[in-house]
Amino acid sequence: MKAARFYNKLDVRVEDVPQPQPKVGEILVDIAWAGICGTDLHEYLIGPKVIPTEDRPHHLTGNHLPITLGHELCGHVSQAPEGAVSADGTPLRVGQPVMVDPRLNCRDCFSCAANETNLCGQWGFLGLSGGGGGGFSETVAVQRDMCYPLPSEIPLDQAVLIEPLTVGRHALVSSGVPMDQFKDISVLVIGGGPVGFSVLCNLRAAGCTKVYVSEPTANRQAQCKAWCSQVFNPIKQNVPEECWQAMGGKGIDVVFDCAGITPGMRDGMDALRPKGTFVNVAGWETDFVIPMEFFMMKELAIRTSMAYVDQDFADVVRDFVAGKFKGVESMITARIALEDVVELGFEALVKHKDEHSKIIATPRADLLPRKRNRPE
Amino acid sequence: MKAARFYNKLDVRVEDVPQPQPKVGEILVDIAWAGICGTDLHEYLIGPKVIPTEDRPHHLTGNHLPITLGHELCGHVSQAPEGAVSADGTPLRVGQPVMVDPRLNCRDCFSCAANETNLCGQWGFLGLSGGGGGGFSETVAVQRDMCYPLPSEIPLDQAVLIEPLTVGRHALVSSGVPMDQFKDISVLVIGGGPVGFSVLCNLRAAGCTKVYVSEPTANRQAQCKAWCSQVFNPIKQNVPEECWQAMGGKGIDVVFDCAGITPGMRDGMDALRPKGTFVNVAGWETDFVIPMEFFMMKELAIRTSMAYVDQDFADVVRDFVAGKFKGVESMITARIALEDVVELGFEALVKHKDEHSKIIATPRADLLPRKRNRPE
Repeated sequence: MKAARFYNKLDVRVEDVPQPQPKVGEILVDIAWAGICGTDLHEYLIGPKVIPTEDRPHHLTGNHLPITLGHELCGHVSQAPEGAVSADGTPLRVGQPVMVDPRLNCRDCFSCAANETNLCGQWGFLGLSGGGGGGFSETVAVQRDMCYPLPSEIPLDQAVLIEPLTVGRHALVSSGVPMDQFKDISVLVIGGGPVGFSVLCNLRAAGCTKVYVSEPTANRQAQCKAWCSQVFNPIKQNVPEECWQAMGGKGIDVVFDCAGITPGMRDGMDALRPKGTFVNVAGWETDFVIPMEFFMMKELAIRTSMAYVDQDFADVVRDFVAGKFKGVESMITARIALEDVVELGFEALVKHKDEHSKIIATPRADLLPRKRNRPE
Repeated sequence: MKAARFYNKLDVRVEDVPQPQPKVGEILVDIAWAGICGTDLHEYLIGPKVIPTEDRPHHLTGNHLPITLGHELCGHVSQAPEGAVSADGTPLRVGQPVMVDPRLNCRDCFSCAANETNLCGQWGFLGLSGGGGGGFSETVAVQRDMCYPLPSEIPLDQAVLIEPLTVGRHALVSSGVPMDQFKDISVLVIGGGPVGFSVLCNLRAAGCTKVYVSEPTANRQAQCKAWCSQVFNPIKQNVPEECWQAMGGKGIDVVFDCAGITPGMRDGMDALRPKGTFVNVAGWETDFVIPMEFFMMKELAIRTSMAYVDQDFADVVRDFVAGKFKGVESMITARIALEDVVELGFEALVKHKDEHSKIIATPRADLLPRKRNRPE
């Protein structure tokens, strides 16, 4: 079968590989769609970072380079043992559409035992760490209880967004604000890229109505506009002042930093009310130096959000099926063929960063939109 | 009357000044005891920092240098209008022993309205900001509702510790742990100086039994020993490893950083369990750079604690009177005369830092211990 495998930075190859063989507890899923994540792009540009190499194979899978990419993935069950069921007991028959929770965990440490699987010291992902394969291929082997059955009327080129939506969901949980209280608070999201947009979608699903976004690029501003109260341009506007003004001099309750750069962090902490909460949802390439004038003088709480846990995934699947993320598909800026994932996927995200948000790929010609995103 | 007034760094003078005149709502309190705080010492060494100067007088008092010092203070009511009562309605008659909450606030901003007076943009302190004077004098003028009546059997040379104890109390509140849950959690206190010791005393009052301390100096180690499970020496021991071992591989629930230096902060974050809470209770002279390997990979919460609020003061007075801080007076390493506050107070804390924890001074010869702490 075809698979896009990571060999080194700027070296991802779509090539023929053997189909994965299901191990105990695993089923096979034929991929419908898989999305390119910021982590994939990070690996493509400066990896291998998370991807295991020959001298440091992955703890759980034992695998190393080359590694099939793609951890945002959905498709249809193509092989399952008689009587196989998902985590919630739904039968997994051939043809059943499923969203895949791609995480690998030891399920044996203090963190896993406490349902804090995101903090497991041996975490990994299908599509980054080996194991049963990845989403940028034709077929993947997955533990049956990591498959979430979807009703057949849910379009899979939208359901593939469940994984990135789960990252935003966990950020909301990590803020410490009970989910039923978001409707009463004000929020500033720093950065309107895929992670920031995921946070926005989850805020709407939670009923939050006072939502501001700080985002400098025009395309992302346009994309966020329909999902928040107001978008500010941090290059042209004083974001903290705009927030304080919009809030009638009261300051913002919670900031989600989805950018991970110092000016954005400072803007966020400045915009917060006394005793507000700053949630880091970004990776940091530089030192994260806390501005004490905001941190101490306002007694801020600083939290962070790392991937997601089982409950987040289950909650987002439920909300997605219930229609609470209607319109989220506007974040998909291209639907491409698996064979084009380097040129029209990774390279497009590098060269035309501001034009793209989420690019998804399929190995199935029948799912591709006609005359779109294909080279002549 | 005599008062110790701050003129400049290393320039504090005990001199004659007029007795303060009470304004509306104020009573006069004759000082029994006042303690030297870390902030006083900081001002003495590198001030004026918090103390207002001629070109930046205090917002609320309008005062500037020279300023009478001493914001940890207690004494006896010496003048009060007929019918004056404290905040809780207790009559304030001449001779009534009182502990003074020394804070000055605008009582008019969002923070004050929300009972977050510690975050008031115009905060000040008697003994640092002018107003009715300070504790290193004979008499101070205080708002009647900032006076807490004490039973006559409470020794005032112990009650003077209520103010520094309140700083520790607020740190516990700032951790976000409900007060009745401290009995079930584990705590590491970084730094066993006056602030760390105050946190220790409050942890005991809250029933916390799994308490570890990291402190390098012998005298402070000895002082802390009776108040915690174990004291570690960060110079000779690997504090995070010791904590993980003591906790059977589970990590610490809450760290209170009362040192404000990078190695201590890193030790604390390393010692924390996944999803643990780090509470900063220290001023930082350098950049506070978050170690992302702990912050992100363990999803830590980082909080800070700034002074205290009304409720903290009332709670500590209540607990102090109820005997919950029995033995706290061991932190007092010298009882001196007001006239000696520079030589035997500030200078002693500078020159013999490791021998001292809390030094308290009195303007009254009759309260001084005989043949102790007095030059021949």
